[in-house]
Amino acid sequence: MTLLAVAVAGRGLVPPDEPVLLADDEALLRGRAAFETVRVYGGRPFRLTDHLRRMRGSAERLGVPWPDGFEELAAEALEAAGVPDAVLRLYLTPGREGSGRPAQLALVSSLPRDLEERRARGISLISLLGVRADAPWLLGGVKSTSYAVNMAAESEARRRGADDAVFVRDDGVVLEGPVTNVWWRRGSTLYITADMYIARIKTRTKGAGW
Amino acid sequence: MTLLAVAVAGRGLVPPDEPVLLADDEALLRGRAAFETVRVYGGRPFRLTDHLRRMRGSAERLGVPWPDGFEELAAEALEAAGVPDAVLRLYLTPGREGSGRPAQLALVSSLPRDLEERRARGISLISLLGVRADAPWLLGGVKSTSYAVNMAAESEARRRGADDAVFVRDDGVVLEGPVTNVWWRRGSTLYITADMYIARIKTRTKGAGW
Repeated sequence: MTLLAVAVAGRGLVPPDEPVLLADDEALLRGRAAFETVRVYGGRPFRLTDHLRRMRGSAERLGVPWPDGFEELAAEALEAAGVPDAVLRLYLTPGREGSGRPAQLALVSSLPRDLEERRARGISLISLLGVRADAPWLLGGVKSTSYAVNMAAESEARRRGADDAVFVRDDGVVLEGPVTNVWWRRGSTLYITADMYIARIKTRTKGAGW
Repeated sequence: MTLLAVAVAGRGLVPPDEPVLLADDEALLRGRAAFETVRVYGGRPFRLTDHLRRMRGSAERLGVPWPDGFEELAAEALEAAGVPDAVLRLYLTPGREGSGRPAQLALVSSLPRDLEERRARGISLISLLGVRADAPWLLGGVKSTSYAVNMAAESEARRRGADDAVFVRDDGVVLEGPVTNVWWRRGSTLYITADMYIARIKTRTKGAGW
């Protein structure tokens, strides 16, 4: 993915090659930030309201005050990017350590080049033991930027010759992929994984999300 | 803690109020970065070589190429900060998504104001179930910036009226605190917690670390 446009609350559009985050933003110091990834079709983000509702829940669990204005920030970045099909990513960070002033970003990137190809041919997966998340402070269902384990799982999958991984619980229940969700179709009904993970996948129920 | 000085590889000293990180740095996107926190006494970082050795191990596990130059970057930031007692924090990020060009930062901050007071009076703890880390991709022993769970545990502790938390395994074994380590003294011998967690606390064996 190539970064096409960046909009920052209070600063407006920022060229993608210019720094936006302060050194002591807690997003860097502590991986403490809420985010959403939204597919853009024909210049319009898919189910943005649902994504923002989930993001607000993540922010609450992470203790970051919720600001208005993500819709406008997203529109600004999308207009600057000027492409109909894209990936929109929204970030809400706590800002500087102890400041109480959150930072709010919208990033628009090109689609991964091999997206359609991978969809057409399918991908190979390995199953890996996932992180247990059965207590509120373990942040099950929260989309925080603390994804180091997810990235390590993807590396492990590639190291073992697979395309990606899928996390399973120690009792064998399938949870989700490191950056993907699990759903399946039986007849005309789509199924998604249950439990705390439902919050992470409800926007895919039409099969058109990403 | 107040940020006093920031040095960035390839850029030199940067005023603490100026942004340093690009919007698509993986440290923001994915909490994927290695870090170390080092106590500075009389202008000198305590056991910097040991910290860098551990950080190099974290970087390797996170798949971030190891660059030279952290000693010089730290010295530059420390000189600019110009205080004898401080906190030095080192960060190594993968840089922009897919770029393969890591970003390297040294931050010098003032000591937390209540540090000595907290040491003198002691603090109250609650125990919380910790994240299981018994598979390599769960990153036990790696100091990554994916600390959202650690921050949520601290909030939970405060919510319950305690000063901080300590993580325990589901079989009751004490692991570590969200941003602290556990050690104890019997006679003249210092003890530390065992297993994969030893990597995270070995610099404290003289009781002078932080």
